[in-house]
Amino acid sequence: MSYATKKLAEEKVFKDPVHRYVHVRDQVIWDLVATREFQRLRRIKQLGTTYLVFHGAEHSRFSHSLGVYEITRRVVDDVFVDYPEWDNSERLVALCAALLHDLGHGPFSHAFEHVFNLDHEAYTRAIILGDTEVNEVLRRVAEDFPQKVSDVIEKTYENQQVVSLISSQIDADRMDYLQRDAYFTGVSYGHFDMERILRVMRPREDQIVIKSSGMHAVEDYIMSRYQMYWQVYFHPVSRSAEVILRKTLERAQELYHEGYTFKVEPTPFKSFFDGNIELQQYIELDETIIMTYFHFWTHEEDAILSDLSSRFLNRRLFKYIEYDPGADFKKVLELEELYKKAGLNANYYLVHDSTSDLPYDFYRPGEEEGRLPIHLLRSNGELSELSRSSEVVESISGKRRFDHKIYFPEDVLLENGKKRMLRKQILEVLNR
Amino acid sequence: MSYATKKLAEEKVFKDPVHRYVHVRDQVIWDLVATREFQRLRRIKQLGTTYLVFHGAEHSRFSHSLGVYEITRRVVDDVFVDYPEWDNSERLVALCAALLHDLGHGPFSHAFEHVFNLDHEAYTRAIILGDTEVNEVLRRVAEDFPQKVSDVIEKTYENQQVVSLISSQIDADRMDYLQRDAYFTGVSYGHFDMERILRVMRPREDQIVIKSSGMHAVEDYIMSRYQMYWQVYFHPVSRSAEVILRKTLERAQELYHEGYTFKVEPTPFKSFFDGNIELQQYIELDETIIMTYFHFWTHEEDAILSDLSSRFLNRRLFKYIEYDPGADFKKVLELEELYKKAGLNANYYLVHDSTSDLPYDFYRPGEEEGRLPIHLLRSNGELSELSRSSEVVESISGKRRFDHKIYFPEDVLLENGKKRMLRKQILEVLNR
Amino acid sequence: MSYATKKLAEEKVFKDPVHRYVHVRDQVIWDLVATREFQRLRRIKQLGTTYLVFHGAEHSRFSHSLGVYEITRRVVDDVFVDYPEWDNSERLVALCAALLHDLGHGPFSHAFEHVFNLDHEAYTRAIILGDTEVNEVLRRVAEDFPQKVSDVIEKTYENQQVVSLISSQIDADRMDYLQRDAYFTGVSYGHFDMERILRVMRPREDQIVIKSSGMHAVEDYIMSRYQMYWQVYFHPVSRSAEVILRKTLERAQELYHEGYTFKVEPTPFKSFFDGNIELQQYIELDETIIMTYFHFWTHEEDAILSDLSSRFLNRRLFKYIEYDPGADFKKVLELEELYKKAGLNANYYLVHDSTSDLPYDFYRPGEEEGRLPIHLLRSNGELSELSRSSEVVESISGKRRFDHKIYFPEDVLLENGKKRMLRKQILEVLNR
Amino acid sequence: MSYATKKLAEEKVFKDPVHRYVHVRDQVIWDLVATREFQRLRRIKQLGTTYLVFHGAEHSRFSHSLGVYEITRRVVDDVFVDYPEWDNSERLVALCAALLHDLGHGPFSHAFEHVFNLDHEAYTRAIILGDTEVNEVLRRVAEDFPQKVSDVIEKTYENQQVVSLISSQIDADRMDYLQRDAYFTGVSYGHFDMERILRVMRPREDQIVIKSSGMHAVEDYIMSRYQMYWQVYFHPVSRSAEVILRKTLERAQELYHEGYTFKVEPTPFKSFFDGNIELQQYIELDETIIMTYFHFWTHEEDAILSDLSSRFLNRRLFKYIEYDPGADFKKVLELEELYKKAGLNANYYLVHDSTSDLPYDFYRPGEEEGRLPIHLLRSNGELSELSRSSEVVESISGKRRFDHKIYFPEDVLLENGKKRMLRKQILEVLNR
Repeated sequence: MSYATKKLAEEKVFKDPVHRYVHVRDQVIWDLVATREFQRLRRIKQLGTTYLVFHGAEHSRFSHSLGVYEITRRVVDDVFVDYPEWDNSERLVALCAALLHDLGHGPFSHAFEHVFNLDHEAYTRAIILGDTEVNEVLRRVAEDFPQKVSDVIEKTYENQQVVSLISSQIDADRMDYLQRDAYFTGVSYGHFDMERILRVMRPREDQIVIKSSGMHAVEDYIMSRYQMYWQVYFHPVSRSAEVILRKTLERAQELYHEGYTFKVEPTPFKSFFDGNIELQQYIELDETIIMTYFHFWTHEEDAILSDLSSRFLNRRLFKYIEYDPGADFKKVLELEELYKKAGLNANYYLVHDSTSDLPYDFYRPGEEEGRLPIHLLRSNGELSELSRSSEVVESISGKRRFDHKIYFPEDVLLENGKKRMLRKQILEVLNR
Repeated sequence: MSYATKKLAEEKVFKDPVHRYVHVRDQVIWDLVATREFQRLRRIKQLGTTYLVFHGAEHSRFSHSLGVYEITRRVVDDVFVDYPEWDNSERLVALCAALLHDLGHGPFSHAFEHVFNLDHEAYTRAIILGDTEVNEVLRRVAEDFPQKVSDVIEKTYENQQVVSLISSQIDADRMDYLQRDAYFTGVSYGHFDMERILRVMRPREDQIVIKSSGMHAVEDYIMSRYQMYWQVYFHPVSRSAEVILRKTLERAQELYHEGYTFKVEPTPFKSFFDGNIELQQYIELDETIIMTYFHFWTHEEDAILSDLSSRFLNRRLFKYIEYDPGADFKKVLELEELYKKAGLNANYYLVHDSTSDLPYDFYRPGEEEGRLPIHLLRSNGELSELSRSSEVVESISGKRRFDHKIYFPEDVLLENGKKRMLRKQILEVLNR
Repeated sequence: MSYATKKLAEEKVFKDPVHRYVHVRDQVIWDLVATREFQRLRRIKQLGTTYLVFHGAEHSRFSHSLGVYEITRRVVDDVFVDYPEWDNSERLVALCAALLHDLGHGPFSHAFEHVFNLDHEAYTRAIILGDTEVNEVLRRVAEDFPQKVSDVIEKTYENQQVVSLISSQIDADRMDYLQRDAYFTGVSYGHFDMERILRVMRPREDQIVIKSSGMHAVEDYIMSRYQMYWQVYFHPVSRSAEVILRKTLERAQELYHEGYTFKVEPTPFKSFFDGNIELQQYIELDETIIMTYFHFWTHEEDAILSDLSSRFLNRRLFKYIEYDPGADFKKVLELEELYKKAGLNANYYLVHDSTSDLPYDFYRPGEEEGRLPIHLLRSNGELSELSRSSEVVESISGKRRFDHKIYFPEDVLLENGKKRMLRKQILEVLNR
Repeated sequence: MSYATKKLAEEKVFKDPVHRYVHVRDQVIWDLVATREFQRLRRIKQLGTTYLVFHGAEHSRFSHSLGVYEITRRVVDDVFVDYPEWDNSERLVALCAALLHDLGHGPFSHAFEHVFNLDHEAYTRAIILGDTEVNEVLRRVAEDFPQKVSDVIEKTYENQQVVSLISSQIDADRMDYLQRDAYFTGVSYGHFDMERILRVMRPREDQIVIKSSGMHAVEDYIMSRYQMYWQVYFHPVSRSAEVILRKTLERAQELYHEGYTFKVEPTPFKSFFDGNIELQQYIELDETIIMTYFHFWTHEEDAILSDLSSRFLNRRLFKYIEYDPGADFKKVLELEELYKKAGLNANYYLVHDSTSDLPYDFYRPGEEEGRLPIHLLRSNGELSELSRSSEVVESISGKRRFDHKIYFPEDVLLENGKKRMLRKQILEVLNR
């Protein structure tokens, strides 16, 4: 029997709070889970700084990755296997891509990527194709198998049904994270009838479609996603923590380029500061190392680095005000002027942050970022795009909502001492 | 209004997956949560190495501590407040002790305490009484308030009802961790009707008793605890990870005393290796630093340190066999001999681990470790000890169950190469 | 102490699967629950014929009524009590109206009301004001107390905050039934964060408003309601059962007026058939009696009555097709013609049923049926109507969706035997 | 394709709150569900009078029967199918027996059987073998198929694995009802890890055994059962309702035999009163008819019948005291004497009720009632009886616990009026 089809002597299970059990029969999957690159995901939180607002959100990308695998396995083995439109020889590549899709995430994913201008998806592919334990396992399936898995991640894989399973408007990734993040934060959003959705998914030519009898379950899923975005993912206080995290790393990089002498050499960060990252260094870096250096940095002489790292560790966050980039333009200039006079560094202590969300996105030709839309399969065999059938989805389709905020350290502005009047003036401009 | 009775302008809530919401009205509690010593608990996992078996168990002592506070608050504010036997001036000391009871836990609590011979409870008191932010907040209540809170932790506090709330056979601590650990691991044990138990708790002289109408709910709680011990807390695979963690730290300490030159100075560990720990160093050490040094140690030249730290990081654990300390005594001597011949260090690679559990413990005079037993309050006002009323509890009372295992690196013994026959012989003795 | 403020010696609780416990301290509430008119609600299902589709939906209006009471109690006692805008002397009238609001429902509520042209709300008031045990309890509070409770039900009560609690777009009634019906049917819709909504409800002049920070929780509630309507309440198969139920009662009434001799006298129905209903007869009639007479009627000689009642008892339902009242007008005439030829009674076997829903309804002056809209309370104290703030709610506001179906007995049309060709022709026109 | 193996064109599902979905692929199962005898189970409550204490417990035997079928299906199709010890040609008989095992239950099962001395299991077999729609469906599988299904119910079926699935210490019946009754009552007992138990069930010769790695899950199940018995099934207040129900029926029967003239002829009861029951009459009788006649009987002239039926309908129950059949013997004689003097009928108003439970029962030769014990399968292939491995189970094994109570109408004894002193004296003897 080939390695690709080798089964474990007995099915193994992982106890999972969201899906009850994650079932593994394939030796390949079992071996992938055991690799150091996959185990590393235990040290990267699924929701970055969100645990500083929702204290339950301490779960890692490890458990999410198992969840995405499990959902994909259920679709393929319990539903698709009965349909001739599905080519079951694609099963293993789908399962591997599901399991590995987040492999390239760096610590505190978004903040980190932002500072060092990285693309986690490119790193996922680099780990799959590079000199890694994961690559070694995948190559035992077939010489071109790592490339196939990588192509699915890149969405260029020939069989677009497989791509759709992992990455579309209603993929295994989203279905897992919505439920998982709801479970660990404890919010009551994020629930939808996944079992029903799985049962009405159908493979069809170059995509996966949903039987129209499942429309309301899909509506519920879209609304869950919408609610999770605004209630959890974009929570203004976790964005405050992200702002501080980002600014700490920026300060360290700035000092590094200025030739500042650190008490503890920032060895694990050097290649990132230099913009010359090697894969092994990328893989080694995880959130425990970031936090350890933040500890070290609280003892640094540079006041900004020491203050920011300590703020992050001890959760002394910035406050925020709403900000209208058009109308409030002058106000910002005025604030920057006041900051300068008060001896405050506006680059680190007056931070603009914006975010946006596209809760459901039907396909618009020419726009590359659009994920594939959801098509409903009517009983007469015709397809119709979801937002044309659902008033609810239509109402939130393709509408990008922006949210702008300015973050600042209220505690500093409230302190007594020198230049108190200037700081008071700043607070007044900020309307506090 | 004094600081002790100062209320927040508006009640604050933490979203909690176990209790739905944790409610805070007292300024003191709010300020304690914001201290760096309390925030540090976010970086110490509630269940140590258990997340390597139950991947959901990534939750920290931070969320557990909030949970213990919340349960105590509900008992005091919703139940006891109506009973004259309860002195409501004890409310604040009870809430503070509940919130802070785990403050002194070190990283990977049990393994770490074991290696460096520490007592986390003593450190909890040291943080409460020492030069810390927590102490500063508590002193604002009253000069002797930190000592009161510390006395509750030490169980020497005058009002034993308060001690019982935090530390007895059916205290807020246990009621929170059973439910919380069940929630995050996803196991179906750990559920019991806490709301009912809270409603039947009654303050009485120097203890807290349970109305006998709640006996079955208490039985259920005791059984939950019993199940959690054997299914989760004593899981043989997470004990394997704990064995490796312990042995890694022991190896590093051994090398340190031998004058070994580390590539990265083990600065945060030095005072621990020297057995001369200062409070600030204790507080700084958390699991992120441990993990970071384990990263560093994988690059060390010492083969044992490098191997063990890498095993922990990448979850390449030891296997185990059951072990009877009496009958198998000779077998162990034989194995040690074979290890020596095969060039394996038995101290690090043939590790005995035992554990025991006392699911419910009625009071036995003269035994100091015994927690206070549970007394049922009959409708005629008489008290009776739980295990005398409940056959189920009686069946598991005071019976210490031992479980002995020997852990070893099966992968090493299976390898090809030099001295293969000796390693094979070892496996045979191990009955693998 | 007066009866109005009399408390039970010890709080009583009902174990409730939705709210965990329903708490009762007031003697008045306890006495109301014990009345025969309230106990009667145990014999009237909350969801009529829905249990024939969702087999779990066997719960009664009794448990729903307790739930509405409990939610109202929590709002009043845990939230409103802190606000001067709330007049706490209204507490008891609010609790009583919440508990009793469904008292007048007849068996299989909608179907029954439809056939006999009844208004359950009028009967609720009649029971509160009439010669009943409920009235006797209420009068012990004060002579005008029954009238007050009745006015709340009628929405004419002076204090409109009380009316809003029981009957508005976001009242205790809806919050209970959405969660309860979801629980018993087992669907995954119907969940929303009620605890959060309760915490952001504020009494204000003549209404209850929602702090705008709770907007997303309210959106989620509105969407839950929308989903429950289309997935559960308007399920086409339970409407089929309702059609048959209605037609059975109509047939019995028709036969009664034609002077038909029933094998068992339809005594409990006579006053309904005659359109001359006395209160005591109304109260006596419940679903057990309906079902018993359906049993009797299966043995009647009239073929239509016997067939229809047997269909309902044994769940042999009608099939349905979608129907467009405009475009399909001629088709219906054709079908009626064919029915006549085939010897089928179109009045009983070709039934048009339509339904509509208004998921959220902002206030439109001049339209009487509109429930009070939901107003958000901004931090600056201003109010804004929900659908103006929420795109999602706006998308479904005030849009009445119609759904028309035609129900028919497919089994009869498929039978062999006489006039088979005609029946086949009917099926063809029905596109089956 | 034969009828036995005929599959539905598309899998059908029932939404079930306990198992999420009940899946049906077999035409036979679909047809059985549609029979009038199976639909009748909707009109028989799963927990008899328990809904008068736990108001959520309004669920019927219909949903329980589907649940038992679903669990059996999962064991057979997902677990046993992989083991050669299981003969898959037994699949259909197992599924049918699971679905139909409760078919013969009468209204308010235990009370009713008790009064008329019936055996519901015998009626289940009678319906399967008699002139019924169920029999007709089963005969389409094979002429001897009804007999096979009946033999499983009777536990005489040749393949004892099939019997064990439906009726043993850990069968599909118990696993469903514990979870279902916990869900609908809302109690926190009744939870155990069924998925784990199903995964460790193994077919073996003439029984079903449990892999010993699942011992703790089984312990948890046994304890759930124990808790449900004492918290729910034997609740003293629902036993009060049962006592009244029983006594009402006994009174009606007594009057019938005395030649009393009923206002409404008790036609559906006559064959029961006469002890000469025909199958069709048995099938027609359900709880709606019982309740309807209780309505009628409230208007009867006989004071006892009218009082008791009204008590049941309006939930005016009897109170109770504990009773020791040995020590309290004289007290009862005294009470009977006092009743006589006070003009009260002790037969109807001083009722002794006892109950007992055997939470787990290992096999004792010669005792017929013992269900098959649970055997654990060790990794070396040996079997051991559960109570020999589990201290917890051992503690409650084979110990029959008796509980005796005396029920009486406290309200009557408290009334003013004639013979008030005698009634007061009765209360004193009752220690109230």
